[in-house]
Amino acid sequence: MNRDPLLQRCGALDTASLSDALDSLGIAGGLAGLQQQVPGTRCCGYAYTVQYQPVSEHGGFRNAANYIDEVPADSVIVSCNGGRLDATVWGDILTHFASQRGIVGTLIDGVARDLDTVAQLGYPLFSRGRFMQSGKNRVQLKAVQVPVRISGVIVNPGDVIVADASGCLAIPRAQLEAVLERAEAVESTERDIILSISRGLSLEAARQLHRYDQPWLKAQDRQQGEAR
Amino acid sequence: MNRDPLLQRCGALDTASLSDALDSLGIAGGLAGLQQQVPGTRCCGYAYTVQYQPVSEHGGFRNAANYIDEVPADSVIVSCNGGRLDATVWGDILTHFASQRGIVGTLIDGVARDLDTVAQLGYPLFSRGRFMQSGKNRVQLKAVQVPVRISGVIVNPGDVIVADASGCLAIPRAQLEAVLERAEAVESTERDIILSISRGLSLEAARQLHRYDQPWLKAQDRQQGEAR
Amino acid sequence: MNRDPLLQRCGALDTASLSDALDSLGIAGGLAGLQQQVPGTRCCGYAYTVQYQPVSEHGGFRNAANYIDEVPADSVIVSCNGGRLDATVWGDILTHFASQRGIVGTLIDGVARDLDTVAQLGYPLFSRGRFMQSGKNRVQLKAVQVPVRISGVIVNPGDVIVADASGCLAIPRAQLEAVLERAEAVESTERDIILSISRGLSLEAARQLHRYDQPWLKAQDRQQGEAR
Repeated sequence: MNRDPLLQRCGALDTASLSDALDSLGIAGGLAGLQQQVPGTRCCGYAYTVQYQPVSEHGGFRNAANYIDEVPADSVIVSCNGGRLDATVWGDILTHFASQRGIVGTLIDGVARDLDTVAQLGYPLFSRGRFMQSGKNRVQLKAVQVPVRISGVIVNPGDVIVADASGCLAIPRAQLEAVLERAEAVESTERDIILSISRGLSLEAARQLHRYDQPWLKAQDRQQGEAR
Repeated sequence: MNRDPLLQRCGALDTASLSDALDSLGIAGGLAGLQQQVPGTRCCGYAYTVQYQPVSEHGGFRNAANYIDEVPADSVIVSCNGGRLDATVWGDILTHFASQRGIVGTLIDGVARDLDTVAQLGYPLFSRGRFMQSGKNRVQLKAVQVPVRISGVIVNPGDVIVADASGCLAIPRAQLEAVLERAEAVESTERDIILSISRGLSLEAARQLHRYDQPWLKAQDRQQGEAR
Repeated sequence: MNRDPLLQRCGALDTASLSDALDSLGIAGGLAGLQQQVPGTRCCGYAYTVQYQPVSEHGGFRNAANYIDEVPADSVIVSCNGGRLDATVWGDILTHFASQRGIVGTLIDGVARDLDTVAQLGYPLFSRGRFMQSGKNRVQLKAVQVPVRISGVIVNPGDVIVADASGCLAIPRAQLEAVLERAEAVESTERDIILSISRGLSLEAARQLHRYDQPWLKAQDRQQGEAR
């Protein structure tokens, strides 16, 4: 697959290192409470955001939730249903569609259904939980590609989403390169520490040796020494 | 296995389609919060209900929880402990017994223990969680085969219970055939849509083509056209 | 492995039997809410306790969390972060270190990260959940080897911790032998009952036959009959 080089770099990193890089830059990105539903899956892509709202009693126009026809490949769908646990906004049809169109994963601030299909297809789905009750006549599409708020974090369309067994995070597009550099330095530092302790060093010695206190300094050093 | 033909039809459907059929008939059946404890397991059977209550301080007669001797094969035990997370009402002895006597699964409005045994036997167990602390001297059997309330839904003895990776639901016995017809039409419609999108149709086109808005109409059309 | 004989006996028992033994002695040991993060893992060892506290705004001295250098083999680390879900106190470096140094498992009253690594190494980790956001600059080490409070239970350094798919419990060191005797009798009784029901006995008959009401009596009988 000829992926965007930034996404390739991002996809090689885990959420822990990326989160440390976000922390070092003072950016809140962790989407607390959204959990991996299929063990062993992860995803990395540009956020395509979807906002649901409760069905209004007065009726009015209800957008059909066929937004997925417009979602580009390499996207991660970020579907915000306000954390509702009683009405699903994801199921087997969307999972089949996404799998076939190169959509790389889905985050739900709420619940999903048809988890047997999702697991069988190995589709990366992250949500607050599972339930089988449809969103139909309970919630309706409000808007797509607008900022959505999940666990106190604003996710904007085009933010980079990374999700793995530890959870989900959003990286603002404008900070992506800075985050990547720091996260790569964090991972490199952590690999060095793990290697050192596998050779018998104490954790304290290994951390001092590899400057664990500010692992991203490495990136800055590298920046100064290299022609980028 | 010579199962009841209605249970056979029911067992071929997932909870999502059955829930859509219940929705179309205005019946609340989803038991929110009860989750699959062993990946890959599902069950379908007639509810045998069990109601627990806190142990009273004044003592009095305590029914021994040997109710399981009376549970017929093809039952799903629905054990209501009021959502308590600190006292189990299911464990390894009951799991072995149920597995050997043709009881097809258990739902607990509360917690279960001996999950290693449950997983090893591949027994379909659905509960709010897991804990190892016994219900003994904490809760006692109040009654069996009475209506029980779980997540706001009344489950009656003999209701049909279906549970899979998406969760658990109860279908009132009197509505079972109507629910089955609609759920089968829903699944057929969804299979058609999935086939159409696999051939490149947009979701909007596939849904319009297959009348996703009211999939159960199919069943009614079929009903009119067929001698049943 | 030449393990402590008491730990060997303990490791052969599941948390359910040990909890019943604790109940019979009036000891609260179940650590509600801490859940197995890697299916199929369990652990048994002496508690090495770690207490975290929020980072104070006024700064002051922050202990580096290199306590793990001091943790003896055969320990289970019990890391109390007051149930916080937004700041991890366990990750891949600690998992690698623990795996290589004979530390047998970790309990977190809070969350952990790098769950992909934890799963890959098959490390027994039990926690309230998962998140990737570091504890760095959010929490700091307060003390090690002090009593910690988890879900209302005080865990003391040196308590025996057992954890499996049903959850986690702590056994006070002074009561360990009494607990082991009773738990072994409970498991023996349960095995007898399971054997009897596999031969067709009703549960009521099997329980009466094997004195399920007070399984630990067996241990006392044995005590009287044997020279220990």
